[in-house]
Amino acid sequence: MAENKVSRRRAIGLAGAGVAGIAGASAIGGAFLTADKAVEAPVSDAIAFHGAVQAGIVTPAQDRLHFVAFDVVTKDRERLVQMLKEWTAAAARMTAGQDAGPVGATAGILEAPPDDTGEAIGLPASGLTLTVGFGPTLFRDASGKDRFGLAARKPAALADLPHFPGDTIDPAISGGDLCVQACANDPQVAVHAIRNLARIGMGVVSVRWSQLGFGRTSSTSTSQATPRNLFGFKDGTANLKAEETDLLKEHLWAAPGDGPDWMTGGSYLVTRKIRMMIETWDRTSLGEQEDIIGRTKGEGAALGQAKEFDEIDLKGLRGDGDPQIPVDAHVRLAHPETNKGARLLRRGYNFVDGSDGLGRLNAGLFFMAYQRDPRTHFVPIQLNLARHDAMNEYLRHVSSGLFACPPGVSGPDDFWGRALFA
Amino acid sequence: MAENKVSRRRAIGLAGAGVAGIAGASAIGGAFLTADKAVEAPVSDAIAFHGAVQAGIVTPAQDRLHFVAFDVVTKDRERLVQMLKEWTAAAARMTAGQDAGPVGATAGILEAPPDDTGEAIGLPASGLTLTVGFGPTLFRDASGKDRFGLAARKPAALADLPHFPGDTIDPAISGGDLCVQACANDPQVAVHAIRNLARIGMGVVSVRWSQLGFGRTSSTSTSQATPRNLFGFKDGTANLKAEETDLLKEHLWAAPGDGPDWMTGGSYLVTRKIRMMIETWDRTSLGEQEDIIGRTKGEGAALGQAKEFDEIDLKGLRGDGDPQIPVDAHVRLAHPETNKGARLLRRGYNFVDGSDGLGRLNAGLFFMAYQRDPRTHFVPIQLNLARHDAMNEYLRHVSSGLFACPPGVSGPDDFWGRALFA
Repeated sequence: MAENKVSRRRAIGLAGAGVAGIAGASAIGGAFLTADKAVEAPVSDAIAFHGAVQAGIVTPAQDRLHFVAFDVVTKDRERLVQMLKEWTAAAARMTAGQDAGPVGATAGILEAPPDDTGEAIGLPASGLTLTVGFGPTLFRDASGKDRFGLAARKPAALADLPHFPGDTIDPAISGGDLCVQACANDPQVAVHAIRNLARIGMGVVSVRWSQLGFGRTSSTSTSQATPRNLFGFKDGTANLKAEETDLLKEHLWAAPGDGPDWMTGGSYLVTRKIRMMIETWDRTSLGEQEDIIGRTKGEGAALGQAKEFDEIDLKGLRGDGDPQIPVDAHVRLAHPETNKGARLLRRGYNFVDGSDGLGRLNAGLFFMAYQRDPRTHFVPIQLNLARHDAMNEYLRHVSSGLFACPPGVSGPDDFWGRALFA
Repeated sequence: MAENKVSRRRAIGLAGAGVAGIAGASAIGGAFLTADKAVEAPVSDAIAFHGAVQAGIVTPAQDRLHFVAFDVVTKDRERLVQMLKEWTAAAARMTAGQDAGPVGATAGILEAPPDDTGEAIGLPASGLTLTVGFGPTLFRDASGKDRFGLAARKPAALADLPHFPGDTIDPAISGGDLCVQACANDPQVAVHAIRNLARIGMGVVSVRWSQLGFGRTSSTSTSQATPRNLFGFKDGTANLKAEETDLLKEHLWAAPGDGPDWMTGGSYLVTRKIRMMIETWDRTSLGEQEDIIGRTKGEGAALGQAKEFDEIDLKGLRGDGDPQIPVDAHVRLAHPETNKGARLLRRGYNFVDGSDGLGRLNAGLFFMAYQRDPRTHFVPIQLNLARHDAMNEYLRHVSSGLFACPPGVSGPDDFWGRALFA
């Protein structure tokens, strides 16, 4: 049927998946005629999938997230490797704004299921990145069993996170053998990508938990303004950023000798779903909110400073002799100076998952942080926060994840996990 | 503090909440320099709040939804009315891109909670609409009690929906005394609006259930392309549209004499959360999918036709003598010809609420339809679908809501529900 031959790329029309940035904007001037097309137009850029590091880590944070953790349900190592090959090929296609498979959503034979699910037909690449990670349980299961002959290759840095004071972790939405982080400027594109990877993985993996997020809560590039979290504050002003090459070497990327070779150029991801008690927070005075955070709410300046990016002064005193930044302020406890210089690259997103049955929105932060070694970075920082942070009264950690994200896929012959399974 | 005086409107900077459409697009040409700003720029339009009908019904459907149903927890009619006045004032402000209250998120005194929660500082109006509705239980509770002296004013059209064959409705995420539909082009703006209304209503209302949605599944204006649902098909091609004035009179708006005067110019909203078994669907052949829907997947043409908007032919036969559109195809059963001419204005959204604990995404359609009278529109159509639709194998209705949405707020002296409570 002629009407079945419309490919996702060809169906894009006005917006044009291939033209990005300023050129794209002028090429689609007519697209501003309706609110509809105006939203589609500027997000038509595609982000390169192949490279030395995985996209989606230092990539300027897109505005939407669909994160999923999978259980591996097969015992067959070869099937798992085959799926990772198929996933990689599909990820390369989808991040380029194409269908998940070579036939596509509509051009196949009528007697077979399509190799793309179709809901992203007509949508541009939308800055989609897909980033894979391997959880501790892929190497050894809870009983210590070496499931796929990978136990000897497990990085020491992938040691289980400790229990932190105050943790109320739900195991059903924590952990996972594999994860995929889909970030995009359109949630339909992020959801489409995860759904098609789950479809390809049927019989090999099973969705363990999944999380949607919006309104990224950290900037990962100096080109981005600092966004606001659901407490209404700018968050991540002091975040590691793509442009800080030396700091990224020191804090973000696994280096030769850090652990197994297959992780060199990779990074470790910690996820924490943090419920925020926003109704309680909203009854707190402006001054108390600012003291808890350690920044002003409007400008986002550290207390005692005038501007957001003015250097924080942890030793500064107020007129009454008390510290400008209270001793239990979040910004003090999370600051590198308080944590032996440790810095994280955070890529968190806000979430609202309906309501909690007690008359409150089930809302908060899906925290994601990449780092060279969680044992020297996330763990000590979080221990510090969990013990002392004034913000804890308004937070509850309900989910936790830890994943080793390998280096990038170098080209069409490479695939996610090749060095691990070699 | 100087840094606390940044108002939301003044903080917008480049994008400018006041300039919309083409003028807005050219005025902010520089905003395409980063992916970040490019996303913000084209959604800077504000939609008028005051008018004869409520915005958010025939308004061209925005791309994001936060819908919330509230229980009224006070017995005090005056407190409820006072809250509706405060809600209306806050809604007028927020839809114009301003803070929820006159003081704002950051300019208040340090000793009091701010009258805005702050997470939308710097974001434009983003096409936000806020639409209110009154549920059957506001008039009489489950025991038949007239809670607020409104029982005599309950419209006959607000009769409880019947149980439909196959329904698996969860009461905890159904019903509600009040609802607010927030639609916007930025989820953070929609969430901010609902959260601030909940904050204002503290002690008067309590969140009963809430739902986020994305990727609108129906076009409500001829200016919009038909979007795709999570089955990958165009949905809502035959939807009532803003431009069809005569049809809207006949099918959408409550007319004088239809029921109580306070609803004249209003419309009735039915919500249904419909879980879609996407993993099963994805294993179905392309031909079977098209037969179930009654349209081609690529173009979206009715089977037997070439183009999406070609007139559907319910009597047409294939070469083998079978109907072109199968007798149990969704498009046939939902078609006005099959339903005594009844037509709905649908404004549904896709949802993904994590996973279901059984290895599947918890995904589907949050169906919303506005109409003049559910007894002649949604109910017979849904009875027809629930009995015969081939698609039912892949669907499960898990939540249901019914609300009387009054006419628009005429100006600053009017408020949501004034005629109802007069």
